[in-house]
Amino acid sequence: MTRQKRTVFYLSDRTGITAETLGHSLLTQFDGIDWETVNVPFLDDSEKARAVVAQINQAAEQDGHRPLVFSTLQQPEILDVIKQADCRVYDFFEAFTHPVEAELRRPSARKAGRSHGLQNSPAYFKRIAAVNFVLAHDDGVNPKHFSEADIILIGVSRCGKTPTCLYLGLQYGIAAANYPLTPDDMDVQQLPAVLEPVKHKLFGLTLTPAQLHFIRQERRPDSRYASLTQCQREIQWQEALFSRFDIPYLDTTRISIEEISAIILDRCGLKRQLYG
Amino acid sequence: MTRQKRTVFYLSDRTGITAETLGHSLLTQFDGIDWETVNVPFLDDSEKARAVVAQINQAAEQDGHRPLVFSTLQQPEILDVIKQADCRVYDFFEAFTHPVEAELRRPSARKAGRSHGLQNSPAYFKRIAAVNFVLAHDDGVNPKHFSEADIILIGVSRCGKTPTCLYLGLQYGIAAANYPLTPDDMDVQQLPAVLEPVKHKLFGLTLTPAQLHFIRQERRPDSRYASLTQCQREIQWQEALFSRFDIPYLDTTRISIEEISAIILDRCGLKRQLYG
Repeated sequence: MTRQKRTVFYLSDRTGITAETLGHSLLTQFDGIDWETVNVPFLDDSEKARAVVAQINQAAEQDGHRPLVFSTLQQPEILDVIKQADCRVYDFFEAFTHPVEAELRRPSARKAGRSHGLQNSPAYFKRIAAVNFVLAHDDGVNPKHFSEADIILIGVSRCGKTPTCLYLGLQYGIAAANYPLTPDDMDVQQLPAVLEPVKHKLFGLTLTPAQLHFIRQERRPDSRYASLTQCQREIQWQEALFSRFDIPYLDTTRISIEEISAIILDRCGLKRQLYG
Repeated sequence: MTRQKRTVFYLSDRTGITAETLGHSLLTQFDGIDWETVNVPFLDDSEKARAVVAQINQAAEQDGHRPLVFSTLQQPEILDVIKQADCRVYDFFEAFTHPVEAELRRPSARKAGRSHGLQNSPAYFKRIAAVNFVLAHDDGVNPKHFSEADIILIGVSRCGKTPTCLYLGLQYGIAAANYPLTPDDMDVQQLPAVLEPVKHKLFGLTLTPAQLHFIRQERRPDSRYASLTQCQREIQWQEALFSRFDIPYLDTTRISIEEISAIILDRCGLKRQLYG
């Protein structure tokens, strides 16, 4: 099949996260297409909608193919304006609202902006508190509070502990601490003493020595720290340690933070708080 | 209408983020229902699917209503197992894959786990680099690197700078710094000198004095810092400062981090990098 250049629009009256998440997960299933992405959040009046129509028509002309439009617009009158453009519209609410209304035997409110938690909700405060916990317990700081953590990630330098903890806090409200395993620990096949009392909360992150080498090279090029030999030694040692002490762990080499976080929650039986 | 208790299942062969995002945004449109949420990520074999069928049937019996099931399952044979349960299934791929295939004139791959960026992609590295930038430039640290920031959030203590910066970095790959406005600055109607050269990158966060008071009370109860009078003074002063120096700003009182971040990107014309 010949390669196509196509444009995709994500339209929303709020952040556009839902439209983009859905559309993206669908479009990743198609190979051989070069996508140009246009995000239009906060599309909440007809004048803006008419400007988007012009933009869509221009893309259609340039591409030689009509654009795909993924939409989560709540106001039918704005969607009607968009439908006048030369495009194919996939509206999420249009597809699912009627079937769900029928199932629940009540009408939907069709109001914008209900999807994200309000600042005043308890779940929202829990997320912010979790972020503060993560920041206060990054890289082995304040281990005396580790008993208050929901989970403690461990692993060698640059294995992804900090971004994963932040994602767990921000997205799911999980109080995640992390503790670095350092070459100083390598002489003994023991857990650092401070981790002993919280052993049941530990989760290890590992990756291939080649990937660790690649990441460390960015940080300190051609150092001993970044050498492939050093990375091999540290990874071999930490995986032996995880096995010896029955610490669950995950090879993160080919997976994203979103997936690492979801796998950790699943394996540790932690409650997800994606929405309040 | 009488209140209903209903159970909703989010089924996915990967993280479940897409299924939950779409189902949640739909269900928030319905009032008067008490939802019980069950997340089943990594549903990738028939045996697990049969266990979920049992769980769905049990919920149907307990609730007296069949559960709603939002699914992003890529394998049709697993979806077929789920459909044997007493439930109403809304499968996102089933609804949209055929129309998109027809539009693009090619078959979809129907493979799981394509949605999230791989660790090796440039966009993924950009996100991780952005998180590291945020951590290294939180709360006014390292202002000499402010010229490298995509944006610099300013505002008084506890106005939400840090979580917003982290979200911008993690989710969108934006190098976001932040700088606190402190009562010491209040004597003069001037920007802190360190912000002068980067004035065009500043964005202010504000909120109502009552909300700031509430948040600060959690941190230091009954302190001068948390008093409503002090909060009123600081907010009044910072909003005057934003106006005087033409700094765009946002009242975050009733909106979530997701929305704050999307509004900032939109207003500042920063490129979104939700996916790589």
